[in-house]
Amino acid sequence: MHVVVNAAISADGKLSSRRREQLAISGEDDFDRVDRLRADSDAIVVGVGTVLADDPSLTVKDADRRKRRREGGEPENPARVVVDSKARTPPDAEIVDDAATTYVCVSESAPVDRRMELADRPDTQLVTAGDGRVDLLRAFATLQADGLERIMVEGGGELIFSLFEVGLVDELRAFVGPTVIGGRDAPTLADGEGFVEEFPTLALEGVERIDDGVLLTWRVDEGQ
Amino acid sequence: MHVVVNAAISADGKLSSRRREQLAISGEDDFDRVDRLRADSDAIVVGVGTVLADDPSLTVKDADRRKRRREGGEPENPARVVVDSKARTPPDAEIVDDAATTYVCVSESAPVDRRMELADRPDTQLVTAGDGRVDLLRAFATLQADGLERIMVEGGGELIFSLFEVGLVDELRAFVGPTVIGGRDAPTLADGEGFVEEFPTLALEGVERIDDGVLLTWRVDEGQ
Repeated sequence: MHVVVNAAISADGKLSSRRREQLAISGEDDFDRVDRLRADSDAIVVGVGTVLADDPSLTVKDADRRKRRREGGEPENPARVVVDSKARTPPDAEIVDDAATTYVCVSESAPVDRRMELADRPDTQLVTAGDGRVDLLRAFATLQADGLERIMVEGGGELIFSLFEVGLVDELRAFVGPTVIGGRDAPTLADGEGFVEEFPTLALEGVERIDDGVLLTWRVDEGQ
Repeated sequence: MHVVVNAAISADGKLSSRRREQLAISGEDDFDRVDRLRADSDAIVVGVGTVLADDPSLTVKDADRRKRRREGGEPENPARVVVDSKARTPPDAEIVDDAATTYVCVSESAPVDRRMELADRPDTQLVTAGDGRVDLLRAFATLQADGLERIMVEGGGELIFSLFEVGLVDELRAFVGPTVIGGRDAPTLADGEGFVEEFPTLALEGVERIDDGVLLTWRVDEGQ
């Protein structure tokens, strides 16, 4: 399994403002890069906070790319994965529509009626792992057992931190855009509790100007 | 007056961990770059939070650079400026030692005994501007009236946000280092309330690999 975290951040590391409204941090070329990365992935993962804030569909936008996937014997769109400890994903959210298979990863603490509602959605599979919170190692092992090897994570900051914490991230691609968002309560690329020692170390693999910003590609060092 | 904000951040935009301990985000080459930038400045500005957390001296480390400043008729070290609404700078802090002139910018709300204690330090000048908080426009106008034109700001995130808010920043130089710090409570490059609209827009002027990270130089667009 290879896990790539991909996100667009402001020059000060924010994913959005404290209001959590989606902002256009990047531009057309970066959107296209993200679409290509999606098309090259087996699954796209987000946290439930991102679902509640943005209601993303996480599908491949470019028709040619979908066609190539079909021709290669793959589903038109990669699978979608929500990490959703309490099963808060609304049953009418885009991410559980019929455009792709969706895995909803919940914990044992998720209310049963909500789990059943989500399990009822057209092409949705529930993955139950962990007691109060989703056990990410177990959940990702289930995804891998289902043949999902190339994983792309699109946020938010809570999930991204948790994935670094358990050592699941292989690569970080951060588009740094030409703006300052600010705000001690604005979501950042990696939130959660934060590290206070044994910080993950990265190796800078690529620096590429895209749109009016720059794409930084970091490899996560082994043994972290 | 030309104001450059300079800071080292993790790949996720943090200045330090939630414990606010100073971390080595960059390396020797970047330290040298920062020292050069200090030597080319008339004043180095920090917020009182940085003084309390790190007790920096903000002097020029390289002896040749200090010598060149003296030979050019300048003081050996640039002036130091603390933005310190309540006059919380400890009288024994490095920043108010006799290595350079220090301006302590306080508000009318700062206790008089604390102000007097700081005014007593060897080469310290009090600048009083603003009621509850330092009025940055007025404080910086005072610095300019004293001949300080090339201003370097070294943090922290609260001060940097406030400077963007009032439109005082001309340039942002962010060294992005090869680590993830994480933490929703960790200080970021720009904290404060945060923008929710009319975000400052930047133009990417330079991208340079230094140490194991990358230095991003942004110009702040006019009229922001």
